[in-house]
Amino acid sequence: MRIGVLGGGQLGRMLALAGYPLGLTFRFLDPSPEACAGQVGELLVGPFEDKGLLERFAQGLDLVTYEFENVPVAAARFLEALLPVYPPPKALEVAQDRLLEKTFFRGLGVPTPPFHPVDRLPDLEEGLKHVGLPALLKTRRGGYDGKGQALVRSWGEAEAAFHALGGKGLILEGFVPFDRELSILAVRGTTGEVAFYPLVENRHQGGILRLSLAPAPGASEALGKKAEGYARKALEALGYVGVLALEFFQVGEELLFNEMAPRVHNSGHWTIEGAETSQFQNHLRALLGLPLGSTAPRGHSAMVNLIGLRPDFQEVLKVPGAHLHWYGKAVRPGRKVGHITLRRDSREALEEALPLVLQLAQIRYSGE
Amino acid sequence: MRIGVLGGGQLGRMLALAGYPLGLTFRFLDPSPEACAGQVGELLVGPFEDKGLLERFAQGLDLVTYEFENVPVAAARFLEALLPVYPPPKALEVAQDRLLEKTFFRGLGVPTPPFHPVDRLPDLEEGLKHVGLPALLKTRRGGYDGKGQALVRSWGEAEAAFHALGGKGLILEGFVPFDRELSILAVRGTTGEVAFYPLVENRHQGGILRLSLAPAPGASEALGKKAEGYARKALEALGYVGVLALEFFQVGEELLFNEMAPRVHNSGHWTIEGAETSQFQNHLRALLGLPLGSTAPRGHSAMVNLIGLRPDFQEVLKVPGAHLHWYGKAVRPGRKVGHITLRRDSREALEEALPLVLQLAQIRYSGE
Ligand SMILES: Nc1ncnc2c1ncn2[C@@H]1O[C@H](COP(=O)(O)OP(=O)(O)OP(=O)(O)O)[C@@H](O)[C@H]1O
Ligand SMILES: Nc1ncnc2c1ncn2[C@@H]1O[C@H](COP(=O)(O)OP(=O)(O)OP(=O)(O)O)[C@@H](O)[C@H]1O
Repeated sequence: MRIGVLGGGQLGRMLALAGYPLGLTFRFLDPSPEACAGQVGELLVGPFEDKGLLERFAQGLDLVTYEFENVPVAAARFLEALLPVYPPPKALEVAQDRLLEKTFFRGLGVPTPPFHPVDRLPDLEEGLKHVGLPALLKTRRGGYDGKGQALVRSWGEAEAAFHALGGKGLILEGFVPFDRELSILAVRGTTGEVAFYPLVENRHQGGILRLSLAPAPGASEALGKKAEGYARKALEALGYVGVLALEFFQVGEELLFNEMAPRVHNSGHWTIEGAETSQFQNHLRALLGLPLGSTAPRGHSAMVNLIGLRPDFQEVLKVPGAHLHWYGKAVRPGRKVGHITLRRDSREALEEALPLVLQLAQIRYSGE
Repeated sequence: MRIGVLGGGQLGRMLALAGYPLGLTFRFLDPSPEACAGQVGELLVGPFEDKGLLERFAQGLDLVTYEFENVPVAAARFLEALLPVYPPPKALEVAQDRLLEKTFFRGLGVPTPPFHPVDRLPDLEEGLKHVGLPALLKTRRGGYDGKGQALVRSWGEAEAAFHALGGKGLILEGFVPFDRELSILAVRGTTGEVAFYPLVENRHQGGILRLSLAPAPGASEALGKKAEGYARKALEALGYVGVLALEFFQVGEELLFNEMAPRVHNSGHWTIEGAETSQFQNHLRALLGLPLGSTAPRGHSAMVNLIGLRPDFQEVLKVPGAHLHWYGKAVRPGRKVGHITLRRDSREALEEALPLVLQLAQIRYSGE
């Protein structure tokens, strides 16, 4: 079986590494000739908009998936006419628009922060009445890693942000004073089989994920079940196939939906060493209609992102239970170039070793 | 860093899959254009004897290793003049000749079955006096998976086998009525750092490894220490770098050395899921002078080889804790085309699920 992947970044790279043991082969499509998945599989280079290229890409493939959620929906739909595309392009469409996304989840009965569409200045005024201050003004489309959004604490700030963000195609969200951020990874096969990884706690800095703790320390079973319930609704409503990541804000025992990623997700990288079956392999199993692997965690894991720096490999690998993942990308400020998963049998042992790993990744950790 | 690998079979393939997360890239050299490592890395095709090819192979590499122990020593030595070659070619030389190998280990004070070189008919007679009957007559070189050897129970059988095996370059070994076969995987870095995986129990059928159980059920700590002591002697005597596999016959609390493999080894495949760090990654860490990863087992594992058959992937992946490794090779009788690792938290749970996996691999299991 030959799998096509739209996008050739680290997610695609790790998909391939998880898929080779199943006897699969991979072809990537990416606009950049430097796409790091090209080091581990065939890479076609060019824009996602090029139909001739998409046709060549599709040739000889058994199915297509994507590892980048800003792939144009039109490209996914074009390919869908030629061969199976999973997750369904509909999921891509929903995920690419924060307004569509929040509306969709609210429609499923999943709580979200208060939000309001903003396309003109009067919308902003009305929105602020509805969601209150402080609030977040975000572009509906194209934002990632905290880009394309502004925290506003006054009408003046809101107006300035409105203009800075282009004055239309925006969404205003109430600022949620959350206890912490959590995510759940769900997976659904072509057979309808469903599985869930445990809740993960995520810490961001400057809008970028820095640290995931899995399973999320102290998360109640009820909270996990709640997240699974929300995820299950989304999976079914979308006729979803593959791994789906949902991000939440935890407030007390409530979960407010923040966003979804219709793909393998950074907050699931710990599963490579920290779960019986990795998110990458389960994504592929789901696409192929193979039985899903156990999502049970093995001990306790922390995943630490390497952002714009190459740590001393010697120092990293000296830490017992530390597993280095270097993506083979050029180091540039703010760029995700690798991650370290620290796995230990007990939470205490993990907490003990974690500060050193965070230091090697130059992350300031505000433990609680 | 770019690693060259002599041989492009499944061992090379799994080396690459373990090395990509360290940011390494790989180039393989193999006589066959179908070598399955070529699906996951660059493959040069041609004979190991071709000096021009070896020179091209070496270009731009940082170091060379091998995954096939019948690589001509001359090729390894030729490359050694150009760049580091690990494990040292000396190890290859010893491993390729059963007489040299057993003599070498006996010289280190490691017990072996009784053996005697056989180059002429009178040697056979003398040898039989020395080792007794039954005995095994083997070619000194080129044997693998039980090929090139004969069990002899009488003078007549011995004489027939002597002629059938070519009448020279042979070794006669006393037949050891062993309790079971065990192996140990040891690893030594360029820094001199040494680590050992736990003893593994191996079951063969028709001379081919079918099943490994790790850690070896019921192996005493003292037995493990004994094996580590033997392995340590070999590592140091050879100035070894990389993973070294030693196979033993267990008789009571004694270990008799059978053979060594100067490379990652089939009886170590369980380490991918069953140990904190896989043999493949530790081999690479050793070569690169990086700290070795923990060799601690995670629960209990069974590794089942897939020989000349493609099992029903659905059925295999349905088994909780079963991990499939399909090498992407054409299925031919007697050929190792994949393996399944079954990992469980307890030995009991493992024993419970194992019969099904053995059945899927069409292995008749004689449990004790
Ligand atoms: N309504 C909100 N209330 C409080 N904090 C918020 C809110 N929305 C976003 N944030 C904070 O900003 C971070 C990034 O926001 P969001 O997930 O919307 O952006 P993104 O740029 O799409 O991020 P990602 O790269 O994870 O997709 C969140 O993880 C959270 O810390
Ligand atoms: N001296 C011996 N006494 C009893 N059994 C033996 C002896 N030598 C070999 N055997 C049996 O034959 C099997 C294969 O022998 P050996 O390891 O020498 O051969 P090989 O063909 O090199 O195998 P491999 O593929 O593992 O390298 C052993 O695993 C063991 O079961």
